[in-house]
Amino acid sequence: MTATVRVGLLGFGTVGRAFLSLLDARREALREEAGVDVAVALVGVRGADAKRASWIAGRPEADAPRFTEDLAAVVASPGVDLVVELLGGLEPARKLILAAFAAGKDVVTANKLLLATHGESVAAAARRAGRGLGLEASVAGGIPVLRALRESFAGDAVTAVGGILNGTCNFVLTEMEASGRSYAQVLAEAQKLGYAEADPESDVGGADAAYKLVLLARMAFGQAIGVEGVPRQGITNVQACDFVYAKLLGRTLRQLALARRLPDGRVAASVRTHLVSNDSLLAKVTGPFNAALVTLERGGEFVLHGRGAGGDPTATAVLGDVVDLARSGPRAALPPLGRAGFGPFRAAGPAENVSAWYLRFVVHDRPGILAEIATELARSGVNIDAVYQAPWDDKAALPFAVTLEAAPESRVNEALLRIGTLGFHAVAPAAFPMAP
Amino acid sequence: MTATVRVGLLGFGTVGRAFLSLLDARREALREEAGVDVAVALVGVRGADAKRASWIAGRPEADAPRFTEDLAAVVASPGVDLVVELLGGLEPARKLILAAFAAGKDVVTANKLLLATHGESVAAAARRAGRGLGLEASVAGGIPVLRALRESFAGDAVTAVGGILNGTCNFVLTEMEASGRSYAQVLAEAQKLGYAEADPESDVGGADAAYKLVLLARMAFGQAIGVEGVPRQGITNVQACDFVYAKLLGRTLRQLALARRLPDGRVAASVRTHLVSNDSLLAKVTGPFNAALVTLERGGEFVLHGRGAGGDPTATAVLGDVVDLARSGPRAALPPLGRAGFGPFRAAGPAENVSAWYLRFVVHDRPGILAEIATELARSGVNIDAVYQAPWDDKAALPFAVTLEAAPESRVNEALLRIGTLGFHAVAPAAFPMAP
Repeated sequence: MTATVRVGLLGFGTVGRAFLSLLDARREALREEAGVDVAVALVGVRGADAKRASWIAGRPEADAPRFTEDLAAVVASPGVDLVVELLGGLEPARKLILAAFAAGKDVVTANKLLLATHGESVAAAARRAGRGLGLEASVAGGIPVLRALRESFAGDAVTAVGGILNGTCNFVLTEMEASGRSYAQVLAEAQKLGYAEADPESDVGGADAAYKLVLLARMAFGQAIGVEGVPRQGITNVQACDFVYAKLLGRTLRQLALARRLPDGRVAASVRTHLVSNDSLLAKVTGPFNAALVTLERGGEFVLHGRGAGGDPTATAVLGDVVDLARSGPRAALPPLGRAGFGPFRAAGPAENVSAWYLRFVVHDRPGILAEIATELARSGVNIDAVYQAPWDDKAALPFAVTLEAAPESRVNEALLRIGTLGFHAVAPAAFPMAP
Repeated sequence: MTATVRVGLLGFGTVGRAFLSLLDARREALREEAGVDVAVALVGVRGADAKRASWIAGRPEADAPRFTEDLAAVVASPGVDLVVELLGGLEPARKLILAAFAAGKDVVTANKLLLATHGESVAAAARRAGRGLGLEASVAGGIPVLRALRESFAGDAVTAVGGILNGTCNFVLTEMEASGRSYAQVLAEAQKLGYAEADPESDVGGADAAYKLVLLARMAFGQAIGVEGVPRQGITNVQACDFVYAKLLGRTLRQLALARRLPDGRVAASVRTHLVSNDSLLAKVTGPFNAALVTLERGGEFVLHGRGAGGDPTATAVLGDVVDLARSGPRAALPPLGRAGFGPFRAAGPAENVSAWYLRFVVHDRPGILAEIATELARSGVNIDAVYQAPWDDKAALPFAVTLEAAPESRVNEALLRIGTLGFHAVAPAAFPMAP
């Protein structure tokens, strides 16, 4: 018995092309192996004629789907059973998805921004319509972490979730680590190689990772966490010298998006640069790769590593959802977000964020600087663990590092606020937690 | 709306206890979050009274399920909707599972031996009965690799699957690496700590990993691969000196179970010790942890890391399957093994297994040994890459290593057969592939 699903594709960028190309290669095998016949009936995209011509180049024209500029017509078409939304952005993606549910169609989307912003109402619309919503591709590309949270780990309680969720940041940090070059130099290279956008702010500033973290944390903890509830620091303040000191500490730098459930049920979420141990798996996550972390109360810690972005891995996740929906029906009983609704977000504050810390200062060197820093740290009740100063030529911008024993972020911030007003800084000081 | 599932539990060892304990802690949350009420109605186990008494100790007796010695009665009971089989072994597990399907019940099992031996007929019985078969716990404990293969990666083609699938071997190898001690010393310690059985043969000989590899490879490639089709070498021939030479090469030793699909569709499967790069994630998989590897034609390589055995992680996987079946119904359309049936196993032979190699010899030292070895390697057309000899005190058992350029296993074996007949060996030579 073969289930047939006729796909209406919205958007035809990198992922859309990769999806059509994957399906070209796999359609026959999916019929035989999975008993599912997936056909793209209609592609809705701006510049439809040019896009179709560029797709057909070198392919038999008869095999190509119809292309149209009319996105609403794709959703409404009686020849479409399932809508794959790859437009990105809030509108018209949201309205088109709601229209698809209203027309009795399943939806698969890779739209993290939309899901992080309107996920609950979109999921509710799917539930009301009794249709399926596939969203695996919205977090960490091909890494199957959402399905793991929703299904495999459903029996256990999640205590922490997150990981290395932004490939651009990871590429920049691991290139800085390998080459010793500055942030600006490496970012320029990443832009040339296509690993960073011309406007990199959403990646390097932490917003992209925050959207993904919100989706993971909601599914894991059942609280209505929004991006505004996730403090985030970009990687723009990481200096070449940080890798020198991290190495002395047996560590390196990674951007981690992390949400932890405290014993009282509150959730501490953040996106920021961490110093991770060179013995950890995270230190071996390099280049544009992603690693999703899930810690279960009983089952322990899991790391899922793979390509977190790009056309092919994302297309694999999209087609996996399409095949799953076609095989198992709308599965209305299984809420797409792992549960029927969310409770209120109970946010933990910086007082609960206890960690060992790495502080880095770049100063106009003169006697007494360390004493002044130590005095301010002591005033906030924070203990210094060690001080590191590598040989450095530039006395007008001399970097050194101070590691702190475990202390709440609130106290570290308080001390840094005062330290920041002292007159010796050549560069603003930085504080990075040392991941266990 | 709450779906209710009444579980009949077969077997009450480590995993059974962990399952009941997990459910005790999570039942309320599962009702609220997943809309599923899971209750254990009946436990079938030898020594039922004593097992029940030991379970109840310190718990309210009224909450405990009924225990019985009559396993068939558990399966037949009208008060049981779903059977969790944790007996292990072939019989009576197989007959009880078939009886459960015949009685219209879903089954969740952690029984890798049964599934590797009779998986196709068990899956066919589930399909005929229109019931669900949950088998995530049978491979790598809590790591959700079977679900990823069956659902998340269903759209893409798998080119390789496997990983570090035996925690005992990994514990022994990583302890040897860390301590410099011998295999025998570390195995004895592992037995004392409970990481190795009193009779460790199934683990250290590679059979356990081969069962798991068979399940992964069948699901990935759709061929009826049996354990007899998986050549396996144990870790029993690994010597302390191998870690010394591996380190010189920037590598360490890991037991990898791997199945690769060649471009012509044949599958090369094996369980053996590899030299893996210290830069790879695999080198950071230590102690009893497991790492499942999946390489997709388009989506790239994925590594799923976590606890691969033990009561709690396995119970998490079992309960995940129970919840999934309760929420989504029998999902008869979704074959438990990822496809309706298997084609014949098309095995690749050692001539297709091309790799760089590490050879290790332990010899009664005398002049000319290296020349004799080099001559035999050359006769088989195998090129030496480098020779390593660390300072060593024992001239009666002097270890050294030879690395080879990429060569087919068949030629390396051919040369080693002749080399093995030469008179200078204190210990049988070993050949380990160098993983890329």
